[in-house]
Amino acid sequence: MSTSRVRKEINEALLAFVDRQRPGLLAISPDLSPLVTALDELLSGGKRLRPLFCYWGWRGAGGGADPGIATAAASLELLQASALIHDDVMDSSDTRRGRPSVHRRFEAMHRENDWPGAAGRFGEGTAILLGDLCLAWSGEMFESSGLDADRLGAARTVYELMRTEVMCGQYLDMLEGTRGPGSVETALRVVEYKSAKYTIERPLHLGAALAGATPEVPVALSGYGLPLGIAFQLRDDVLGVFGDPAETGKPAGDDLREGKRTVLVALTAERADRVQAAALERRLGDPRLDRAGVDALRQIIEETGGLAACEAMIERYTAEAAAALESAPIAPDARAALADLAVAATARLS
Amino acid sequence: MSTSRVRKEINEALLAFVDRQRPGLLAISPDLSPLVTALDELLSGGKRLRPLFCYWGWRGAGGGADPGIATAAASLELLQASALIHDDVMDSSDTRRGRPSVHRRFEAMHRENDWPGAAGRFGEGTAILLGDLCLAWSGEMFESSGLDADRLGAARTVYELMRTEVMCGQYLDMLEGTRGPGSVETALRVVEYKSAKYTIERPLHLGAALAGATPEVPVALSGYGLPLGIAFQLRDDVLGVFGDPAETGKPAGDDLREGKRTVLVALTAERADRVQAAALERRLGDPRLDRAGVDALRQIIEETGGLAACEAMIERYTAEAAAALESAPIAPDARAALADLAVAATARLS
Repeated sequence: MSTSRVRKEINEALLAFVDRQRPGLLAISPDLSPLVTALDELLSGGKRLRPLFCYWGWRGAGGGADPGIATAAASLELLQASALIHDDVMDSSDTRRGRPSVHRRFEAMHRENDWPGAAGRFGEGTAILLGDLCLAWSGEMFESSGLDADRLGAARTVYELMRTEVMCGQYLDMLEGTRGPGSVETALRVVEYKSAKYTIERPLHLGAALAGATPEVPVALSGYGLPLGIAFQLRDDVLGVFGDPAETGKPAGDDLREGKRTVLVALTAERADRVQAAALERRLGDPRLDRAGVDALRQIIEETGGLAACEAMIERYTAEAAAALESAPIAPDARAALADLAVAATARLS
Repeated sequence: MSTSRVRKEINEALLAFVDRQRPGLLAISPDLSPLVTALDELLSGGKRLRPLFCYWGWRGAGGGADPGIATAAASLELLQASALIHDDVMDSSDTRRGRPSVHRRFEAMHRENDWPGAAGRFGEGTAILLGDLCLAWSGEMFESSGLDADRLGAARTVYELMRTEVMCGQYLDMLEGTRGPGSVETALRVVEYKSAKYTIERPLHLGAALAGATPEVPVALSGYGLPLGIAFQLRDDVLGVFGDPAETGKPAGDDLREGKRTVLVALTAERADRVQAAALERRLGDPRLDRAGVDALRQIIEETGGLAACEAMIERYTAEAAAALESAPIAPDARAALADLAVAATARLS
């Protein structure tokens, strides 16, 4: 089965799950309808990377044509929706996937209805609750796959570990932001938990566990997934600074305004002279950073060689992943699909 | 087994679960230690109502002396911790169980360390993540009980329903707050989902499902749990206005400052004359409400007869619950314990 065909099945499973929830919510109250609409719209975007890695982990470990795997894999998209909705509250982000973030959307609803009370607080409160609902539903959807109970039990342990890791990784990420210029090493530790394990390694393990993999399979998948996950996040860091807003779905320079202590920033700080370092520290995290300010930071990141160093790291980690994939004891169609996904996950957008 | 003995087992199960999580977190990073400490402190308070109702639902349906039930039941306390942590962010509450709320605690940590960036946002971000972690862990703890897999499957459906109901109920509660004076009827609908089902009915059903109850048992438990759950929330509303801060763990008048559209407020509005109604609308939800303002509102709530009407409703619903309990087809020791819990859940604090 091709990755585009798998993506279609994942989308169908996701739609079917939300459709099954809708009547229950509307039976509680028709006032809940905007929550489902907001979720529908958020879920209409996204590349489905985590479900795809889960699916190919399953196939790699010998999993066959069971429709349950699309449901189990797609549940990761609800977990991701929860993380995105809460992340946007935490970062006060205005946009997500090219549209207003959930909290901004409900803030606008409050304002348009001219309701009493604080619109901003209503928006954030709703986003916290909708994120909670997505987190609860991700577990519910995972359990609803109908896959073999023993394998679900083994996979549940992976799922639980993954959730704890990503939440801890996000806290460490936030903590990093309070610490001023950090080292490449500490930035990489955050990437490992917040992103590499969560986006690639654990979804692969989840699929493998669902397929009843022998122990050497997840080990081999880690050899591919961890370096690829780091490369994926580094690419995301680069796109966060240099990407086209039409493709990233976020305004240009948002990461800089938020003062994210990315590996890219750490690589730049390591290479900056005194003047560049001072400018970097002064502008990074300034919420009023304008176009000229963004351009100035971009220039520093390029001129110091920070960008080139980051691109070299992406290349190195991607090559490491590709080499591990070569020798992984997995089914050939999964190997081919994972090689393609590695390219998709780390590509410069056109 | 006595309720105090059950409470002890529930506390032990809760401590054991958090202790099992601790090394995993510290292995990710020692920086995560404050998260566990904050959770430990939050969990040291609370009356364990939801786990107790779950336990006695189990016993009522014929469940025996299996240590797994304490673990499954105690997981509800982590779900409640998640709801409290997120609630306090949504309401900007300073205190919880007599101590600083989680977001205030981490805001203070940020300030004490003189970190760069906004302390308030750091506190709220951490609280969102810790609440997410508690929500994920509640499911994980529930699954870890070791109880029979088929019964866990049936109980999981109850658990999932309960989570969706409480999150939807909280959204409806927030929405109610945007609507000015509401009717007693709409306020009661919010109470049903946000509180009556979540605190009492569903925990009873959960325990009964874990014990493999026949269908008439949950029906009978609803006859007791739903009216008792409403009475419980109405008592909470009264305590939120008239309670002693030393016993409620919240500053006097916090509910009034937040402008909560409780049943008590709706009963008062129904009975208010023009002058009283105007004063109620002017002061309710005023975040700067001082002691004199709180006293003025208390006086209106008493003088209109709103308080007396609320007390009468509490009595009526409690009596309805007691009558249903009399004829419920459950084990005698569970009937006795649930009768005691009904008193505890609706008592005026001394």
